[in-house]
Amino acid sequence: MDVDEVVSAAWVVPVETSEVLQDHSVVISGSKIVDILPTAQVEAKYRPKKHTKLPNAALTPGFINTHTHTPMVYLRGVSDDIPLREWLEGTIWPLEFKLVSHDFVKDGAKLAILEMIMGGITTFNDMYWYPEAVCEAVVSSGVRAAVGMIAIEFPFGSYGTGPDDYLAKGQATMEKFKAEERLSWCVALHAPYTCSDATITKGGDLSKKLNVPLHIHLHESSDEVEASAAGNKDNPSCHMSSEKCRPMANLERLGVLNERLIAVHMNWLTDEEVAQCATSGASIVHCPCSGMKLASGFCRVHDLLEAGVNVALGTDGASSNNSLDMMAEMKLAALLAKGVAKNAQAAPAATALRMATLNGAKALGLGEVTGSLKVGKFADMVAIEFNVPGAWPAPVVTGNNGMPGFDPVTHIVYSSTRDQVSDVWVHGQRLMSSRQVLTMDSVEIREAADKWSAKIQDILTELAASKRQKTEN
Amino acid sequence: MDVDEVVSAAWVVPVETSEVLQDHSVVISGSKIVDILPTAQVEAKYRPKKHTKLPNAALTPGFINTHTHTPMVYLRGVSDDIPLREWLEGTIWPLEFKLVSHDFVKDGAKLAILEMIMGGITTFNDMYWYPEAVCEAVVSSGVRAAVGMIAIEFPFGSYGTGPDDYLAKGQATMEKFKAEERLSWCVALHAPYTCSDATITKGGDLSKKLNVPLHIHLHESSDEVEASAAGNKDNPSCHMSSEKCRPMANLERLGVLNERLIAVHMNWLTDEEVAQCATSGASIVHCPCSGMKLASGFCRVHDLLEAGVNVALGTDGASSNNSLDMMAEMKLAALLAKGVAKNAQAAPAATALRMATLNGAKALGLGEVTGSLKVGKFADMVAIEFNVPGAWPAPVVTGNNGMPGFDPVTHIVYSSTRDQVSDVWVHGQRLMSSRQVLTMDSVEIREAADKWSAKIQDILTELAASKRQKTEN
Repeated sequence: MDVDEVVSAAWVVPVETSEVLQDHSVVISGSKIVDILPTAQVEAKYRPKKHTKLPNAALTPGFINTHTHTPMVYLRGVSDDIPLREWLEGTIWPLEFKLVSHDFVKDGAKLAILEMIMGGITTFNDMYWYPEAVCEAVVSSGVRAAVGMIAIEFPFGSYGTGPDDYLAKGQATMEKFKAEERLSWCVALHAPYTCSDATITKGGDLSKKLNVPLHIHLHESSDEVEASAAGNKDNPSCHMSSEKCRPMANLERLGVLNERLIAVHMNWLTDEEVAQCATSGASIVHCPCSGMKLASGFCRVHDLLEAGVNVALGTDGASSNNSLDMMAEMKLAALLAKGVAKNAQAAPAATALRMATLNGAKALGLGEVTGSLKVGKFADMVAIEFNVPGAWPAPVVTGNNGMPGFDPVTHIVYSSTRDQVSDVWVHGQRLMSSRQVLTMDSVEIREAADKWSAKIQDILTELAASKRQKTEN
Repeated sequence: MDVDEVVSAAWVVPVETSEVLQDHSVVISGSKIVDILPTAQVEAKYRPKKHTKLPNAALTPGFINTHTHTPMVYLRGVSDDIPLREWLEGTIWPLEFKLVSHDFVKDGAKLAILEMIMGGITTFNDMYWYPEAVCEAVVSSGVRAAVGMIAIEFPFGSYGTGPDDYLAKGQATMEKFKAEERLSWCVALHAPYTCSDATITKGGDLSKKLNVPLHIHLHESSDEVEASAAGNKDNPSCHMSSEKCRPMANLERLGVLNERLIAVHMNWLTDEEVAQCATSGASIVHCPCSGMKLASGFCRVHDLLEAGVNVALGTDGASSNNSLDMMAEMKLAALLAKGVAKNAQAAPAATALRMATLNGAKALGLGEVTGSLKVGKFADMVAIEFNVPGAWPAPVVTGNNGMPGFDPVTHIVYSSTRDQVSDVWVHGQRLMSSRQVLTMDSVEIREAADKWSAKIQDILTELAASKRQKTEN
């Protein structure tokens, strides 16, 4: 049978079940996986246009970055070691008000996508202004994305006047790109402290009507939860609702705590809320690096997993991380879950890998088309090279037989870094080959980064001068 | 003036103070740094045999891995997602009893050193059997190490019969290698639960006599602390002393809680113990990855730093990490300190970099000769390349002026990974150039890893069979 490509590897880790396959091949035709079989049987069955052999690598599903703000990659490192509110209000928001435009978003998204492809991320879930600009970068780069139709209560520069305008613009963007198979959509409400009850209700209605997820930051800081419960409007983290209740309770009251909800962070949860997450069918995106960097709190990942909640992983924006590195996030999630639960068996390697792949796809409503290596799904796949000193001794057996051993899955999660990602496929297309990204121009992307960096420096200098003046007066 | 090498870089981060130097050069003569000056002044002043230009890189002190067990790199991935006691007693110790020999240690140390050099580690502090074999690997590779004269209460295979024998063998090794400038020494007592009061006293006396640090695992798990305080001898983590007290109090009673002590882990500390660490002058080695992976507890890093304690960083062995990656450890330490202290300003980037370099040197008694870039110190140095998409926008200003900006130090700590380490110098000698390690044979090291891996598989198979038999009986 004629097919487009056969990729043969030492290991295939489908993630669909806990099974790990040795010396297997993935067969790609068009955008899809059409077979997974022992490499020894390939020759008799397939005539591929291209046969890629990776004798020291594992094939896994591409990583799914289930929460990010791609254009914020340009703000990487501009404001570190600072608490959440000060970070947002003192630097990030003032910078964004002056910077953000269609071009800023498109150029920033391109840099973020380049970094993500090089780290094996094949799908990301974005929340930012000018989603149309993100779509353009997605289309030209070959990556897959869920793009947020963003809404927030206040007007934002040239983009829009308020929630109705934003949601209308988001829908227009969705309409414009409806033919793109690699694009899917979310309604992206910023947070309870920036969205009114009316906006949350509208977002929920739209999410239902379009049957797309509702993506929101939730229970990120203890301030947010406690000020909302107390109705303390003096605290900028208090939700906008007049209800004195925890923000998650308010979302339930408004009817949006359901299987379409993607709740990001969720660092502060009671036992009852953990149970409610499970019964509602909502997905949670854990961003361990961002949560620690901003000292927002520790998500109860082990308890959520035990309760049966779908927990995915995200890098958050590069300005609170400062990397878009899902392999680092996956290791960190596995480690932190153990530390927080005081249980070395919490979030074992296979679970962490699933959180970084299939659980993300499920959260985005893409569980039937990506997130695992399965016949009929899109070929969204990465190769992770084990022939590097940091991964020696090489994996030789799988842990499935209950025996300890050099398990490829624990090697991927605990010993490997994103620089071991050698090859990346999305929608059947090779985006990176032997560390060379084929679909993007890194020189042009570097030049754009330098240009925006100069502009950011100018604004920072202005901001610093105005802060100094305020202090002097 | 004739000198051996001038290295010119976009940034020089000496770590000695908080100063960061733009467009500066480090001048090397023999094993030492003889000048640090603006690159514009180099030509008029020096005639170097070699002039290395790194226009997109930062030069920092080499990383100091202040706690590891190098040969355990061969046990990377053999036993994951398992609690400390089960991990030690069920797999690690039975494997070690059957495996460990001079050759195992030497071959393993070589692999670990290769991995460490590639990640910018220029000095490591080792605790393992057959220290002589580690010394041989250190000498041939060009790296710097503090090698432990190990002691533990029970006999171990062919190496020794007990603490007196071990300490005698350690001193003989020290004597044998006394001419090696790149080797220094510690007395390495395994832990309170494996060393009697008599052994701790002997170790302390030897450390005083030789004026070398006393290196010990301490307060790693709550079990260790609580069982010791309660005198619960049924708990294998209870200290060997007949005193019913916390292990740190016992060390104080025995007179070894002083400026020579290197206490590793210290995940369980009262406020009084934090203060005692400061007044005693002891150093603490924080191993964030290992501590989380084994769910041992969270070290109070921010409180220790605030109290003025010298806190260094370690990877621990590769079997509880599973990487010897100090750059990952540095980022993780900075993040976790913030999370644990609920303070986003805890362990800022410059502090994390200092923990990963100069604080390690101080702990090892090497603070006057390495750990920072300073005229008169050994040239132990790494170049970190910023011209990669994950580090764009490139650093342009330092944070020293109190202004936010693209600071090279936060770029190193929060955005960079060990694969950005392009060049490594130890003792003035280049060990890695453009990612090529010059002093080690990676093919031979891979072959040795494969050989030992096969042997480990055989033993694991035997262990699994014997476990099955026990279960059936």
